[in-house]
Amino acid sequence: MKDYQIVLTKDYLEQVHRNIEPYIHRTPVLTSAFFNAISNANLFFKCENFQKVGAFKYRGATNAVLSLDEEMAKKGVATHSSGNHAQALALAAKKRGIPAYIVMPENAPTAKVNAVKDYGAEIIFCEATLNAREVTLCKTIEKTDAHFVPPYDDYRIIAGQSTAAKELIEDTEIHLDYILCPVGGGGLLGGTCMAAKHFANGTQVIAAEPEGANDAYLSFKKGEFVPSIDPSTIADGLLTSLGNKNFAVIKDEASDILLVNDEEIKKVMFWVWERMKIIIEPSAAVPLAAVLRNKSRFENKQVGIILSGGNLDIQNFHF
Amino acid sequence: MKDYQIVLTKDYLEQVHRNIEPYIHRTPVLTSAFFNAISNANLFFKCENFQKVGAFKYRGATNAVLSLDEEMAKKGVATHSSGNHAQALALAAKKRGIPAYIVMPENAPTAKVNAVKDYGAEIIFCEATLNAREVTLCKTIEKTDAHFVPPYDDYRIIAGQSTAAKELIEDTEIHLDYILCPVGGGGLLGGTCMAAKHFANGTQVIAAEPEGANDAYLSFKKGEFVPSIDPSTIADGLLTSLGNKNFAVIKDEASDILLVNDEEIKKVMFWVWERMKIIIEPSAAVPLAAVLRNKSRFENKQVGIILSGGNLDIQNFHF
Repeated sequence: MKDYQIVLTKDYLEQVHRNIEPYIHRTPVLTSAFFNAISNANLFFKCENFQKVGAFKYRGATNAVLSLDEEMAKKGVATHSSGNHAQALALAAKKRGIPAYIVMPENAPTAKVNAVKDYGAEIIFCEATLNAREVTLCKTIEKTDAHFVPPYDDYRIIAGQSTAAKELIEDTEIHLDYILCPVGGGGLLGGTCMAAKHFANGTQVIAAEPEGANDAYLSFKKGEFVPSIDPSTIADGLLTSLGNKNFAVIKDEASDILLVNDEEIKKVMFWVWERMKIIIEPSAAVPLAAVLRNKSRFENKQVGIILSGGNLDIQNFHF
Repeated sequence: MKDYQIVLTKDYLEQVHRNIEPYIHRTPVLTSAFFNAISNANLFFKCENFQKVGAFKYRGATNAVLSLDEEMAKKGVATHSSGNHAQALALAAKKRGIPAYIVMPENAPTAKVNAVKDYGAEIIFCEATLNAREVTLCKTIEKTDAHFVPPYDDYRIIAGQSTAAKELIEDTEIHLDYILCPVGGGGLLGGTCMAAKHFANGTQVIAAEPEGANDAYLSFKKGEFVPSIDPSTIADGLLTSLGNKNFAVIKDEASDILLVNDEEIKKVMFWVWERMKIIIEPSAAVPLAAVLRNKSRFENKQVGIILSGGNLDIQNFHF
């Protein structure tokens, strides 16, 4: 048996869901007559843009924080991130009443810095390079003895993220032929694969990825890890490279990975805003864009789509 | 007894709600920890941006269309509008399978013209003056014998709009001290006043209006009708002048009308987008802007807010 099969069992995922349920929102599943009509499919949108901190990331961060024993917990948690994981971990730590140390690049947008501060985390600034972030994180951990919670390459995180698809499966009354989600580091995709495996019956999981950050696509097609080089996409939540634990799950359990370009992402994002009256971030538009690029594949199918988040700086967004 | 008291009885509003319920969405009531914190009040948002055609207007239009007897109905309905009422009437007519004739100015945005066409209505273009619109509507009615459905100065419309506040009262488990809604022509405000009167116990109804289109405010304060002259506001749904039937209700039943300016409307609209992850149009931001301008008045109160709609052309919006 592979590692992930040993850890990410049905029992464990059920336990994780019970543990985090009091802390998370059970987000709604919405439908849209408009998108059903233009896709010729039956679409079910799991709205993680309405999750706490505005993204599914809060599920995994909450599970990681709750997984710590008292001794470890009281020393706090640490990570480096300027995105949704930073806010998610900060809030999860606050809810447990423990410290959070977040390493952020000194050029991080003020709005994001303030959001993390508002959740009571301590911010440690560093130069805006990956190397500086990692070194600063190491020093912070050395100094505080806090526990490192990675953003995606971690079974507790994957298990936490699995609960979004689990709820989608439970709250959709008909059988889903497919569940689609975006892939960046692979935490959500890995979790979605395991939820479909354990809680659905033959539901295929398909990921969608931007052409400008296609390392998961290349790795999946080749069957071995292809590193990400200079990724560039409007879907800023998907710039991260695929994690090792995540890839092991995805290689076995995902059915396919589809690509879309930034023009499609932008168009679909605005369409969702205008037609469904909900705010989603560019990353969250990627799976629906993939459905609309591959209409024949999804025709007359029951398709779950995870809208991963709704965080973007609207007034700085270039329309 | 006044006319409105004779027509807009508790029994009638209940009957209207039963009649239109199969056709409308029972829209959700959302809360926001963020807006509760900054207002120091408990806010309950009735999300009519999720209503069919994206606005509460579908309630009144549906009631008007269902009110017609077979003989009248088969000749169809007519109105002049380039806004939400046009789409609402077109869809309500389509659902009953009767014709709709919509007079629109020839400079109406293509998106709005197409939306009305998509609902199967016949569009009659005219010059972009109020006079041309009224003359063209008269000619259309003469020719088709269709029934005129006004956008707000009509008891069937007021009764239809009342159901938004009725649902808000029913779906909010605690007693509301206030319900706030925007005021333009006064259909929503008149309906909200009557719903609070019949279905709540001492809940005060307060309207909010843009400073640049303050005819309802001036009329309410003076106690007599003050005509609207050259209104100008970003809240384009509130440019219309207060209706006569509506004013009769509002004069007696509303507790107050509060003003806000376009800067406040814009700021609050984006805040709702960013924090609640839902799209509202400028008009819908007006009541929340009024709460935030008058914080001490609403401190520690239970406040219902009707988010009236979510229709705007996002990609042409000037940020």
